[in-house]
Amino acid sequence: MAFGGGTGMAALLAGLKLYTPNITAVVTVTDNGGSSGRLRNDFDMAAPGDLRNCLIALADVDPLMAQVFQYRFQEAEFKGHCFGNLFITVLARVVGDFEESIRALNRLLRVRGKVIPATSSKVSLVAHHPDGSKSTGEVQITKSGKPIATIELRPSPVPLSQEIREAIEAADLFLFGPGSLFTSVVPNLLIDGIVDAIKQAKRPRVYVGNIMTQPGETDGFRLSDHLRALRRHVGADFPDWVIAHNGEVPPQVLEKYAREGAEPVILDLAGDGEFDGIRLVTRDFLGRGDAARHDPACLARAIYDELLEPISRGVPPARTLLEGRAR
Amino acid sequence: MAFGGGTGMAALLAGLKLYTPNITAVVTVTDNGGSSGRLRNDFDMAAPGDLRNCLIALADVDPLMAQVFQYRFQEAEFKGHCFGNLFITVLARVVGDFEESIRALNRLLRVRGKVIPATSSKVSLVAHHPDGSKSTGEVQITKSGKPIATIELRPSPVPLSQEIREAIEAADLFLFGPGSLFTSVVPNLLIDGIVDAIKQAKRPRVYVGNIMTQPGETDGFRLSDHLRALRRHVGADFPDWVIAHNGEVPPQVLEKYAREGAEPVILDLAGDGEFDGIRLVTRDFLGRGDAARHDPACLARAIYDELLEPISRGVPPARTLLEGRAR
Repeated sequence: MAFGGGTGMAALLAGLKLYTPNITAVVTVTDNGGSSGRLRNDFDMAAPGDLRNCLIALADVDPLMAQVFQYRFQEAEFKGHCFGNLFITVLARVVGDFEESIRALNRLLRVRGKVIPATSSKVSLVAHHPDGSKSTGEVQITKSGKPIATIELRPSPVPLSQEIREAIEAADLFLFGPGSLFTSVVPNLLIDGIVDAIKQAKRPRVYVGNIMTQPGETDGFRLSDHLRALRRHVGADFPDWVIAHNGEVPPQVLEKYAREGAEPVILDLAGDGEFDGIRLVTRDFLGRGDAARHDPACLARAIYDELLEPISRGVPPARTLLEGRAR
Repeated sequence: MAFGGGTGMAALLAGLKLYTPNITAVVTVTDNGGSSGRLRNDFDMAAPGDLRNCLIALADVDPLMAQVFQYRFQEAEFKGHCFGNLFITVLARVVGDFEESIRALNRLLRVRGKVIPATSSKVSLVAHHPDGSKSTGEVQITKSGKPIATIELRPSPVPLSQEIREAIEAADLFLFGPGSLFTSVVPNLLIDGIVDAIKQAKRPRVYVGNIMTQPGETDGFRLSDHLRALRRHVGADFPDWVIAHNGEVPPQVLEKYAREGAEPVILDLAGDGEFDGIRLVTRDFLGRGDAARHDPACLARAIYDELLEPISRGVPPARTLLEGRAR
């Protein structure tokens, strides 16, 4: 079972489906920018964009259907809109209930596993900054230029749906990330009662770290800073596992990212006691292309080797922090 | 094999698919009004609306998918657009070739039979009026308030595609209408060489008459006027069969239509020699509801009884004009 949003989550799912037909993805719906944000406002609904990416990642349909879903208009009044977002919007209208419409879309797209929206209502993110000010909305949060102390959902509490609760109870493990720490990973964990439900399930909770920092969200963050930020929201015993990239990023890619203020996330977990008990898996996860993103198959393979496969054999996953320490 | 467009054609197809899995529909793409016309202009493509209706009529998909395709936006910049039209537009962009994209959509929607656009290019209708003036565009033609002498396609000639030619050669019979005489039925017959190809196939050519006249197109037309108009475009030996409604239309429906200037089409074919040799089938085809439209199942049943079934048994259809004469 995976929690997140954005391209990071979609990549994770696209990889995982090579290893298991039984993935449940809980996806953020708080995006208020771009096509997704415009629809969220115009149609007063949960943002569809992250759902779209995750549904397509797990869909078993004609590749043309996936292309149509990901098509972005360049023309007329539709400019900038992603067609799959419109599809979700129309389906929600036709069905009349957002969660039910996403269940229907899982069926229409023959999703292997299940994609569930974190909530069916139009929820906003509010960031509290260390200087006491706050920003409302994903776009505004990232643009504020201020560090983020904590994130909350408004209106709150956001209730935990029965569908997500049941998926948690049935899960083998819980994956968080990769993806935007404060706008994709944390929001899912702010649903009322979800952290407790996950804890009660007593299954490995796995944080998948980002390869690069994210301007406006995690500037200057090392891996430890990511974990501290997570713990501020969900408690000090989180997570059980961390999966992180330990390879190089090519200079020309680094340069491109540097121009936007992003840099590699430094692995700094080993040896200081604060993160004792966390099992660390590090590999070279870098995908091809000029983006510093996880290769879906490599990431899924690591999750399979270290977690899914031992779990399926009834063997508790056993890697320790020191074994997996960064170079 | 059926030729037409609009709701009339869609109703015919929805009925016919109950009797045969092997229908080919050639659909007009010259609509320049509404959602279809806006997309035709904004995306410089053939109009998608008539195709959408016919594809959905023959589709074998989740009913929800059909509802999504027929959804018309009430909101924001999308207002008035039909979602299925957008789907066709995006698919045409993604595939890069209009005809190929409609072939793909036949596959995606699991169409029973085949729906083919009359042409893949942005073609306009030009109407020549008896006073020597002309109108360009379906909307303008209907709005002109003038009788229509002849219709032509611009630019012309519009080539006959190999796909349509092969379908004609393989057809058991040819159905024209029901639907707008000058803007749905005639345009398909103006494709370069199509009338000859149909004639060479030596299969019954069947005109299905409309129940009501259509304001701006066929004001005051009796059934004979429809046939004369058709013959002006395709030659004097057309058609072999005529199927027409001979039942009543309820007074409250007549009243509604009368307010828009429409009246029942009067059956006047019998006995004057001009239409000798045409076989006439008349039944009560009126569907339920407050529109004077053909009931899809009744219409298909008549076509099956009189034509498809005898043809399938190798018996030439045999009804004569006098047998089927109007009351």
